[in-house]
Amino acid sequence: MPDPLEDIATLDFARAARRGYPEAVLCEPKSIDQVATIAQAVADRAAGSPDQITLFTRATDDQAKAILGVLPDASWDRTARLLAWPPTPPEPTGDAVLVLCAGTSDLPVAREALLTARYLGRSAELVVDVGVAGLHRVLGKLDQLRRARVIVVAAGMDGALPSVVAGLVSCPVIALPTSVGYGAAFGGIAPLLSMLNACAPGVAVVNIDNGYGAGHLAAQVAAPRTEEAL
Amino acid sequence: MPDPLEDIATLDFARAARRGYPEAVLCEPKSIDQVATIAQAVADRAAGSPDQITLFTRATDDQAKAILGVLPDASWDRTARLLAWPPTPPEPTGDAVLVLCAGTSDLPVAREALLTARYLGRSAELVVDVGVAGLHRVLGKLDQLRRARVIVVAAGMDGALPSVVAGLVSCPVIALPTSVGYGAAFGGIAPLLSMLNACAPGVAVVNIDNGYGAGHLAAQVAAPRTEEAL
Amino acid sequence: MPDPLEDIATLDFARAARRGYPEAVLCEPKSIDQVATIAQAVADRAAGSPDQITLFTRATDDQAKAILGVLPDASWDRTARLLAWPPTPPEPTGDAVLVLCAGTSDLPVAREALLTARYLGRSAELVVDVGVAGLHRVLGKLDQLRRARVIVVAAGMDGALPSVVAGLVSCPVIALPTSVGYGAAFGGIAPLLSMLNACAPGVAVVNIDNGYGAGHLAAQVAAPRTEEAL
Amino acid sequence: MPDPLEDIATLDFARAARRGYPEAVLCEPKSIDQVATIAQAVADRAAGSPDQITLFTRATDDQAKAILGVLPDASWDRTARLLAWPPTPPEPTGDAVLVLCAGTSDLPVAREALLTARYLGRSAELVVDVGVAGLHRVLGKLDQLRRARVIVVAAGMDGALPSVVAGLVSCPVIALPTSVGYGAAFGGIAPLLSMLNACAPGVAVVNIDNGYGAGHLAAQVAAPRTEEAL
Amino acid sequence: MPDPLEDIATLDFARAARRGYPEAVLCEPKSIDQVATIAQAVADRAAGSPDQITLFTRATDDQAKAILGVLPDASWDRTARLLAWPPTPPEPTGDAVLVLCAGTSDLPVAREALLTARYLGRSAELVVDVGVAGLHRVLGKLDQLRRARVIVVAAGMDGALPSVVAGLVSCPVIALPTSVGYGAAFGGIAPLLSMLNACAPGVAVVNIDNGYGAGHLAAQVAAPRTEEAL
Amino acid sequence: MPDPLEDIATLDFARAARRGYPEAVLCEPKSIDQVATIAQAVADRAAGSPDQITLFTRATDDQAKAILGVLPDASWDRTARLLAWPPTPPEPTGDAVLVLCAGTSDLPVAREALLTARYLGRSAELVVDVGVAGLHRVLGKLDQLRRARVIVVAAGMDGALPSVVAGLVSCPVIALPTSVGYGAAFGGIAPLLSMLNACAPGVAVVNIDNGYGAGHLAAQVAAPRTEEAL
Amino acid sequence: MPDPLEDIATLDFARAARRGYPEAVLCEPKSIDQVATIAQAVADRAAGSPDQITLFTRATDDQAKAILGVLPDASWDRTARLLAWPPTPPEPTGDAVLVLCAGTSDLPVAREALLTARYLGRSAELVVDVGVAGLHRVLGKLDQLRRARVIVVAAGMDGALPSVVAGLVSCPVIALPTSVGYGAAFGGIAPLLSMLNACAPGVAVVNIDNGYGAGHLAAQVAAPRTEEAL
Amino acid sequence: MPDPLEDIATLDFARAARRGYPEAVLCEPKSIDQVATIAQAVADRAAGSPDQITLFTRATDDQAKAILGVLPDASWDRTARLLAWPPTPPEPTGDAVLVLCAGTSDLPVAREALLTARYLGRSAELVVDVGVAGLHRVLGKLDQLRRARVIVVAAGMDGALPSVVAGLVSCPVIALPTSVGYGAAFGGIAPLLSMLNACAPGVAVVNIDNGYGAGHLAAQVAAPRTEEAL
Repeated sequence: MPDPLEDIATLDFARAARRGYPEAVLCEPKSIDQVATIAQAVADRAAGSPDQITLFTRATDDQAKAILGVLPDASWDRTARLLAWPPTPPEPTGDAVLVLCAGTSDLPVAREALLTARYLGRSAELVVDVGVAGLHRVLGKLDQLRRARVIVVAAGMDGALPSVVAGLVSCPVIALPTSVGYGAAFGGIAPLLSMLNACAPGVAVVNIDNGYGAGHLAAQVAAPRTEEAL
Repeated sequence: MPDPLEDIATLDFARAARRGYPEAVLCEPKSIDQVATIAQAVADRAAGSPDQITLFTRATDDQAKAILGVLPDASWDRTARLLAWPPTPPEPTGDAVLVLCAGTSDLPVAREALLTARYLGRSAELVVDVGVAGLHRVLGKLDQLRRARVIVVAAGMDGALPSVVAGLVSCPVIALPTSVGYGAAFGGIAPLLSMLNACAPGVAVVNIDNGYGAGHLAAQVAAPRTEEAL
Repeated sequence: MPDPLEDIATLDFARAARRGYPEAVLCEPKSIDQVATIAQAVADRAAGSPDQITLFTRATDDQAKAILGVLPDASWDRTARLLAWPPTPPEPTGDAVLVLCAGTSDLPVAREALLTARYLGRSAELVVDVGVAGLHRVLGKLDQLRRARVIVVAAGMDGALPSVVAGLVSCPVIALPTSVGYGAAFGGIAPLLSMLNACAPGVAVVNIDNGYGAGHLAAQVAAPRTEEAL
Repeated sequence: MPDPLEDIATLDFARAARRGYPEAVLCEPKSIDQVATIAQAVADRAAGSPDQITLFTRATDDQAKAILGVLPDASWDRTARLLAWPPTPPEPTGDAVLVLCAGTSDLPVAREALLTARYLGRSAELVVDVGVAGLHRVLGKLDQLRRARVIVVAAGMDGALPSVVAGLVSCPVIALPTSVGYGAAFGGIAPLLSMLNACAPGVAVVNIDNGYGAGHLAAQVAAPRTEEAL
Repeated sequence: MPDPLEDIATLDFARAARRGYPEAVLCEPKSIDQVATIAQAVADRAAGSPDQITLFTRATDDQAKAILGVLPDASWDRTARLLAWPPTPPEPTGDAVLVLCAGTSDLPVAREALLTARYLGRSAELVVDVGVAGLHRVLGKLDQLRRARVIVVAAGMDGALPSVVAGLVSCPVIALPTSVGYGAAFGGIAPLLSMLNACAPGVAVVNIDNGYGAGHLAAQVAAPRTEEAL
Repeated sequence: MPDPLEDIATLDFARAARRGYPEAVLCEPKSIDQVATIAQAVADRAAGSPDQITLFTRATDDQAKAILGVLPDASWDRTARLLAWPPTPPEPTGDAVLVLCAGTSDLPVAREALLTARYLGRSAELVVDVGVAGLHRVLGKLDQLRRARVIVVAAGMDGALPSVVAGLVSCPVIALPTSVGYGAAFGGIAPLLSMLNACAPGVAVVNIDNGYGAGHLAAQVAAPRTEEAL
Repeated sequence: MPDPLEDIATLDFARAARRGYPEAVLCEPKSIDQVATIAQAVADRAAGSPDQITLFTRATDDQAKAILGVLPDASWDRTARLLAWPPTPPEPTGDAVLVLCAGTSDLPVAREALLTARYLGRSAELVVDVGVAGLHRVLGKLDQLRRARVIVVAAGMDGALPSVVAGLVSCPVIALPTSVGYGAAFGGIAPLLSMLNACAPGVAVVNIDNGYGAGHLAAQVAAPRTEEAL
Repeated sequence: MPDPLEDIATLDFARAARRGYPEAVLCEPKSIDQVATIAQAVADRAAGSPDQITLFTRATDDQAKAILGVLPDASWDRTARLLAWPPTPPEPTGDAVLVLCAGTSDLPVAREALLTARYLGRSAELVVDVGVAGLHRVLGKLDQLRRARVIVVAAGMDGALPSVVAGLVSCPVIALPTSVGYGAAFGGIAPLLSMLNACAPGVAVVNIDNGYGAGHLAAQVAAPRTEEAL
């Protein structure tokens, strides 16, 4: 019997074993049919008893519905455009992850980072709308900032928040530029450059709007010490 | 008698009358000979009793020496690459200008802004090395910031300082991006974009390394109210 | 009772006290629901007697309708994409603001600047379609230009108008590049660069299409002298 | 006997016949030896009675000296970096070319345009330092502008002058962007984009610093009507 | 009675007298209402006996219909997105204009150039689909090329055709880059740069997709000699 | 009788004879009508007995339907957006072409390359989803890689696969960057630059998403030796 | 007594206490005098018994000599352009850092990262010349890669190595783009974009040539777990 | 005994066996010492009887002299900046490579391609100065073009030559953009984009100034058919 998956994808089911973290399917550039075919392959492999979580990222509403058609009990966070199956995150291990969000409009990617960190096994919290235009907002969170093992900072426009935060704490800061803004924000280039040039050291930059990557990296930084050498 | 100036420049001596501020000669892209010819024209016109100040900006050492050869009592700030003749700034009028400098390396353009504001008739002060990586430094100056009528903020790299400052005060902030930095600072593009996208409103951006322009603009914003309509 | 606002925004209601100007909500990148939730929070805080104006900027028609659903007496300028509540601008104080508009297509951002300046407490006038292709149009307004304390100049395409105007007056010129144009206008990069390199000093540049920022900055420059140090 | 020219160049001596204008040798990217070899070939072909002019453009001082070593009676304009041999321009035919130069620093490319137009057979004049920051300077030349058949306008920084001039005359304007400026002038990108987006129609743009190209184009536009179809 | 035009535009009706060519209205960035208001003003001024042609460029279908609602006898070339009123071009004077089009997809801007030249008073012809991939196509037109006084060459993708043509003729070539292409064509940047760097001199570049500008420039170059000094 | 084709295109029917490969029609930037007119011309020329294949590339669904309306037996690969008429590829000659596809989302351009190579007379195979994030996938295909005469590698995002593959084989690798990715992928600029800078030599780069060009080039590289000199 | 430091810098001596890591002085954009003044301030504060290490980064030879003039026992790694005083790194704590270097030319920034990590208190090793063009080189180090808690990967040109490495391990990978390459490497833009778009998650990007930032970030990721909340 | 090579490089001596072509050392970004150390390792390995050729590319004069100090009988082509040891190219096999050079200034990279192809075992010829500005030059070589199995075309400025050549022949064309030009040539970006968008299919692009890569690729395309699968 021909395998419809074979023509379009070579799923890396061994990745959880090799890297310690589950496979994620980037939905956005795929057709609805391709996404559904992949979801079916995930279901088939599990055969009722899934041994690892699969994430579906940057899913449009239509893609999400196609996935839920195959995996009806998958979780779906529409703001974050993220689905997960099975839907329950693992029991948290390792250290805490903190996600900061400079403005309301940065919420989608901030939530994507938050949920990714949780599905990869960390406890994670989100603090919203603490941009540098009102500095008292972030300074009011100083204790919380200093308790984190790693902080993800999502910001668009001037992308100034990661620099400010990195100057206040000793843990690594993951700078997550967003495409929020207009004109000379150039779809996220402005905050991206700002973050790459952060005058405080200890800033790790990921791609524009890459909440998944930021959350994944945070989960790795905050991983329990014993997991070494897979 | 042929006029050597005529072949190379049409000096705008009427500018002080028309716009209220003196002419400035951008030296950098001119040859030593051209700069000296222009300095001579300035001296000739004054004929011993200059009625206005001429600034020479972005002068290399060799250009500065050529100017001093013609106008020996001109002032020369080598860091700021600025000469002025006659050398004494006018008595300050209007409101105070404050110049902030994010890092030591931003000093040349910050000083160029400072001196320009003074030669255009304002009182002006400079505060150095208050970048956002050590936020306590700028927060410790809050009273001084709030007393200014206009603040020039020179910063390279992430260019985050103007956003932070503009969020703390009610006066306009003139953001002066510098070419300090390397790699993805792209000769000042990173702070320029950051400043154009400042999340706090009230930020006026000038060209990269344009200390003269920032100082000029600051002098205009802080000008006495009565000067209207020249 | 859970607060729906808390998950998405930390409104900076203290900003009017701290900076002297009201909060503005950038609508464009927010969802309809987020905008409505924020409008409700604005209404709730006021509880019938609002003590300050809130601006909603860059609102789509759908966002505007959602805001008007919550704040039915808000003003809405559809061309400028701006709403304000309460709808009446304050009595003007300080000096006059003049807004120039190079072409008909620059009207939306020019009006956004005009209305912002008015809602921030200044008297403000608009002059339309005075681009440099027909120089007599701007030269015919010379008296009006010279009476202003600050001039906002909105222009797309070659962005040449601010340079020309700044050479004619002694007050600061706020250059507002627009995304009007096509091809090598690159969504406003051409006028932005032109303005940053204005050969006349005294030009303050803001982000492409940032009428709100230009109007805010103009209001600050033209502010009454007594407002210092909030 | 081996021909040293053959290994490095295929001179297009037939070009004068085919296109009506002489060959030009772009010196800058060539080695001193290559330039000297080409000059020698030019001398050899002429064998005492040159029937057409050869231009050597963008020549460094060292390249110029090498050329003069071979063709001692060649003309050399050091500012324009241009040599011509034989040194005398042809008797002018066709219409007049006018070259405007926004600032003193734009002189080298403006002169390159001026001389090229003359060596290609046109009468040509130069007007210097008439940038838009002092608009009265260009308005004072209106009669001269309206007498020209074609106008070359060299400008750096904001590149605003061609737009202004094109709005004042009925003849074509050749916009010649220069690399004069710093920061966001980006080596001439700012004036190039400004000129490509000129809001007045009738503007023909050439490459940054391409004085030769501008002068050549001007000579073609102002060519006598009878020269058609070579 | 209030004038609806006054709030949105300052039409330059004196332009025909001043520059010798009619006013053109760039429709694309304007609203339907603005376009209709302007068309009405054009009709009102003419009051039955129009003394000059008005062009409406880059009109969408909806804009075109609004214009035809006011000026029912206007001509409309839908491919070129151009309307003209009154609809009949003037009797041709001056020299001939030739428009070349590298590929079928470049037709809209090529036709815009063609029609503009005709409405500005020149005779003009169009040759289609003669790109350099099949060089025999353009070589087969050599006689026609050499009869023209000025040639407009529209090309996207590699933008190589103007270089090739300019090497074959003695008249000026107006290079009109188009946004045809994908990927690294970058919306016309590739042919724009190619044309600015044409290795054959005599190439005048206009903005990407600016058929109107190319046609206008061509009409000026080919203008009768007597029209000097308006 | 007028020929509707003549106004829009000069089909290069001699190309098969001249270059040895059939004409291809790039549909995307053409109107439906233009595409149909061209298809009709193809049908007319063949008059029942076509002697060469015509490809229609980057066809939208609507364009494809218009072509099928004229040439009902044309083949259509909707994923690859490619049509061919007559529909049967020629008998393969020359050497084998291998097409690798880094991710599922790169499939459309990879298939376009695959089918083009087949319609140009080569045998060609496709291997999907072998990106470098799971290196074992490409290493598991080493034998297949080493049997190919030329390998096309389609990849978006980091574009790392061609470098890795070129380091493993001795045949040329054609690197086909795709616009798959988001944020700093910049529509394919990231993989394009990565491929141009491949640290392994032997990498030939084509335009972003240019599957047709990659397949054509592969067919030429793998062509039988006897075909020389057409 | 005047303090020469005060005019140029506000050293952040409290930073070690606040952030847990020593101050670093970026030398490159500073003058020799400024660097020497800062070195003297470092010496003065220590007064014989320094309690923390100061790093001097990106020092030219002349700057290094000026620093050694003041702090003769400082260490100097000329390849890495790094000085440290006092010269002995602290006893390592936390986990191991591994630094990979794609090519010989990437050594300077790779060594800067290596030494920074050591001076910040980690054990760190360097593996050189393991670029993807010879994949067996990096595959041969798999055991060493999997023992690391964090891996810094320095690469120029295609920047493909971090993607490949991140796909092989479970720890975070810090991608350090270098300006090695030419042409379309654009001074490090090519590897920077490649790394931001790494198809394997878990990649943290720093600025081009920012070895100091990469080493600092690595030291933070590998920090002992008890150091929380300074 | 310590191995000085080990600290800086992992030479890939197995590459000839694995890929069929010798190792090449990119000298430019390496220090003189590093280059000399590598040359010594090459000499040591050979121990008097080298079994393969090593190329040293993009060598400065000082680097070349250091290499010749260690390998005195190496060949050195100073124009091409290339050294080879042993100095004699292998007996040619496979098909002929033709290298075209658009202008004299493109010679260095054209010669680098030529010599690389020869050292990799192909017969190769060079034709100089056949740019499209004088089309008869390339048309005069049509027979030679059609005899080649692969053609390398080096061109700067408009980069138009590869498009023209690819339209005339049936073999693959390797487009080699050079950094020759100024202004909007942007160091080779203009010809690079032009070549990526070549309107004739069959064009393979390599990095700007990458003569080595072009020659290597040409040698692979023209390799004898029997060499498959190393």
